[in-house]
Amino acid sequence: MADTDEAGQSRAERAARRARRRRDRAQTPFLHLPREQPHTILPPLEILDPEQVEQIHQASMTILEEVGLDFLDDEALDILARAGAKVDREAQHAWLDRELVLEAVSQAPSTFTWHARNPARNLVIGGDALVFAPNGGTVFVQDLDRGRRPGTLADYAALVKLTQMCNLLHTVGEQLVVPHDVPVPLRHLERLRLAVTLSDKVLMEAAHGRVIPQDALAVARLVFGGELPPDGPVIGGVINVNSPLRYDGRMLGGLISYARAGQVTIVTPFILAGVMGPVTLAGALAQQNAEALAGIALAQLVRPGAPVIYGGFTTNADLRSGAPAFGTPEGAWAAIVGGQMARRYGLPYRGSGTLNTSKLPDAQAASETLWALWPTVLAHTHFVLHAVGWLEAGLTVSFEKFLLDAENLALFHRFLQGFPVDEESLALASIRAVGPGGHHLDTAHTRARYTTAFYQPFLSDRQPFESWQEAGALDAPARANRLWKALLAQYEPPALDPGLAEALEAFIARRKEELSGADLYG
Amino acid sequence: MADTDEAGQSRAERAARRARRRRDRAQTPFLHLPREQPHTILPPLEILDPEQVEQIHQASMTILEEVGLDFLDDEALDILARAGAKVDREAQHAWLDRELVLEAVSQAPSTFTWHARNPARNLVIGGDALVFAPNGGTVFVQDLDRGRRPGTLADYAALVKLTQMCNLLHTVGEQLVVPHDVPVPLRHLERLRLAVTLSDKVLMEAAHGRVIPQDALAVARLVFGGELPPDGPVIGGVINVNSPLRYDGRMLGGLISYARAGQVTIVTPFILAGVMGPVTLAGALAQQNAEALAGIALAQLVRPGAPVIYGGFTTNADLRSGAPAFGTPEGAWAAIVGGQMARRYGLPYRGSGTLNTSKLPDAQAASETLWALWPTVLAHTHFVLHAVGWLEAGLTVSFEKFLLDAENLALFHRFLQGFPVDEESLALASIRAVGPGGHHLDTAHTRARYTTAFYQPFLSDRQPFESWQEAGALDAPARANRLWKALLAQYEPPALDPGLAEALEAFIARRKEELSGADLYG
Repeated sequence: MADTDEAGQSRAERAARRARRRRDRAQTPFLHLPREQPHTILPPLEILDPEQVEQIHQASMTILEEVGLDFLDDEALDILARAGAKVDREAQHAWLDRELVLEAVSQAPSTFTWHARNPARNLVIGGDALVFAPNGGTVFVQDLDRGRRPGTLADYAALVKLTQMCNLLHTVGEQLVVPHDVPVPLRHLERLRLAVTLSDKVLMEAAHGRVIPQDALAVARLVFGGELPPDGPVIGGVINVNSPLRYDGRMLGGLISYARAGQVTIVTPFILAGVMGPVTLAGALAQQNAEALAGIALAQLVRPGAPVIYGGFTTNADLRSGAPAFGTPEGAWAAIVGGQMARRYGLPYRGSGTLNTSKLPDAQAASETLWALWPTVLAHTHFVLHAVGWLEAGLTVSFEKFLLDAENLALFHRFLQGFPVDEESLALASIRAVGPGGHHLDTAHTRARYTTAFYQPFLSDRQPFESWQEAGALDAPARANRLWKALLAQYEPPALDPGLAEALEAFIARRKEELSGADLYG
Repeated sequence: MADTDEAGQSRAERAARRARRRRDRAQTPFLHLPREQPHTILPPLEILDPEQVEQIHQASMTILEEVGLDFLDDEALDILARAGAKVDREAQHAWLDRELVLEAVSQAPSTFTWHARNPARNLVIGGDALVFAPNGGTVFVQDLDRGRRPGTLADYAALVKLTQMCNLLHTVGEQLVVPHDVPVPLRHLERLRLAVTLSDKVLMEAAHGRVIPQDALAVARLVFGGELPPDGPVIGGVINVNSPLRYDGRMLGGLISYARAGQVTIVTPFILAGVMGPVTLAGALAQQNAEALAGIALAQLVRPGAPVIYGGFTTNADLRSGAPAFGTPEGAWAAIVGGQMARRYGLPYRGSGTLNTSKLPDAQAASETLWALWPTVLAHTHFVLHAVGWLEAGLTVSFEKFLLDAENLALFHRFLQGFPVDEESLALASIRAVGPGGHHLDTAHTRARYTTAFYQPFLSDRQPFESWQEAGALDAPARANRLWKALLAQYEPPALDPGLAEALEAFIARRKEELSGADLYG
């Protein structure tokens, strides 16, 4: 019978189910967060004066020229040698004159548009705009029901769905969690499949070696109708430096592959001051600057004008253990100065959101997160990676913290807009009419603004103690736990052209056969 | 036997106990937080341009002149009338011309020294210095062992002890919690007794009516050898406005009493935008400014040059319930603009730290707290009240959150200092010596700075998951619970002159008899 589907449901039942889901979605405030990118009216927070910025710049130029960096990739060394750098091929080392570096860096755009498969999701990178991207590189997942465990492909899919449903996350993310149940050489294919089919947001994929970026570019071509658009990138990834002063072959392969295709490289030294760089912040930041500019210069030598983002990820080590410390004063200084350095070269800036070392989504996790997020946002960070989800110095993504962090993004979206000061908003007529001892709750001025005046939280609980207790005395993670499960039940995939879906599956099937058992970095 | 005390302990046992306690204290990092006041090198964060500040100023002048305020106290009305204000005695209302207000406000000092009974605890109010003061006005206490309950005198004493032990809390606080087991008219006497005997930090006492401030001033005279010092205040309290636009008799009595004695009034409108003021922030802040300046002008008319602090406590209401919302974007705007307005008049500025609506010291509590604390600190707030302990919109103080919040104060103390950029700190020699791929953990440069390079947390846990789990898998409140109990066990009172102790007890005993059953505000 044509009116009954395979599950035995009638057309009427299906319609009722769709209507119910639509109603649920309408009543879920999380799904109605603002869709536009945040823009900030604030001047960037700065902690160094221009002379100090110049001292860091000069020190980093000396590092590039006199200490140099290891580049563990022959093609990278070729490119640098051709551009005039002094190269020691045996040592895989290069010294870069400041003229070479600064001339190359000056080719990079200070703003660009990063295209998504849904043009309504395109992003401006740079200027007064911010981008929030989800967690990346996490190995474990945790939630209140199942505890902490290695990530799986099902976890990956759930994280893509939550990312797609959160209007304040602007990219689909890169390596949201390791899918341990997928063989290593096939993981990027599964990540790409989920990113394209479950989300219509800006694509990212690991810039690891040459095989993964080539597959990512092939998928991007499929998504964009066979050709990469000429007017802006559609995919990109993070290039980490093996600090101190070393780019490994895997990262250089990724950098060269993406840059050559005109795609985005987010060049990010990872420096724990006292371990991978000097214990003093000035020195660690001079090293960060040298390392970031070296990679950005290389991208520009590969393809002048390639979109790049200056990344900073400097914080201090816990010197008693050598472990990373996050959400620290030292990390806050670094986040702010990273922005100052990026502005000096007219480059977009990447920082990080929810950095913390807690093992649970508790008060420590929230505090350290906001010790990272406040300076990062005020520093005019254009691309805020790890904006949700982190725990344990990035080893674990928590489903509950993912949503707790999203509330902060919503708060910042509003905070950064500021507020009007004009006759209407000064409200003298209303102040006059209410007079001393009255109240403003039912004035026409208030009623007209009742639904839009203030940010309404989707997780924070403002009830009195007794009502909260009657409602189950749930703490914030317990409420977040309910919400992520409700959201996953309400998820619906974005529209996808059936031809594209078919081509994508065919490509992935072919590549899975080709790559089964392969060494991606051989 | 002279060698045995009442508990039967020998001199040797007592000495051993003292030695043990001294060793415990040496090993408790919390007790070694910096003693000096925090100073900030950052320019104040501003969100309005000078023209918008002027619009708010002009609107507030219009409110003072054309709408006026209720002053529910005959002496206050007399003072205002004598100064030339238009006064309606029957309506207990006054209209204040801008010339009168601005001329009076201009008498207030922009900085002053607030004296403590221990001169090493004296505070600078204003300039680039900050003061952190503990929670005030809370009704309930909670801790993980005993849950939530009405406060008692024993709780009050414990909170004074923790305040005294926390070097980053600079005043002994005001009404740390309601001591429900003490009769209402005697509570201020017990508060004063505990503040003077258990702490040597800057004194505060409720500016409620005329009796309490007179007793507080009498205690202050005892503490300072019979006379109030001529070169700066020694006590003060918060004057709240019954917004909109009303000072009640209790607050005016306190304001006049403290100002007449040259002591500190912290004049603070409490505006929930949408309830006690316009729903639009511009209007709410114009009202805040009018209300604060009216009280500050009155203090200056009572005694020109009396030390005052411009207070702001504007946030939004949750319009669905009328309840206060804290840690919001709107509250952050208000915290920042309050600082801009105070600077316009050259006044020290008071804001608030740990404002939140959570019922537990969970992730919501921590997030909202930092949404209040970051903008408050960056706004150059000179006097940060409620810097620790709040839960439930200020109804409850949590022993655990008290210590969790103190960690944030330590982080800010360091963050606000910035870091040096010079040859030593740029560390080029060290970067050169370590070279690519090396590490800095055991360089001479790192070793020389090993203990001082970074802030070491006393509560945040940076251990790997497994070590944390082996250590009991404690979340942040559980660790704070252990710490406050350890601290109370290590508490020792500051030195107190026996003559002063005796005089204080005699005064309190006499006043207890006199005030037993009295109506303090009659």
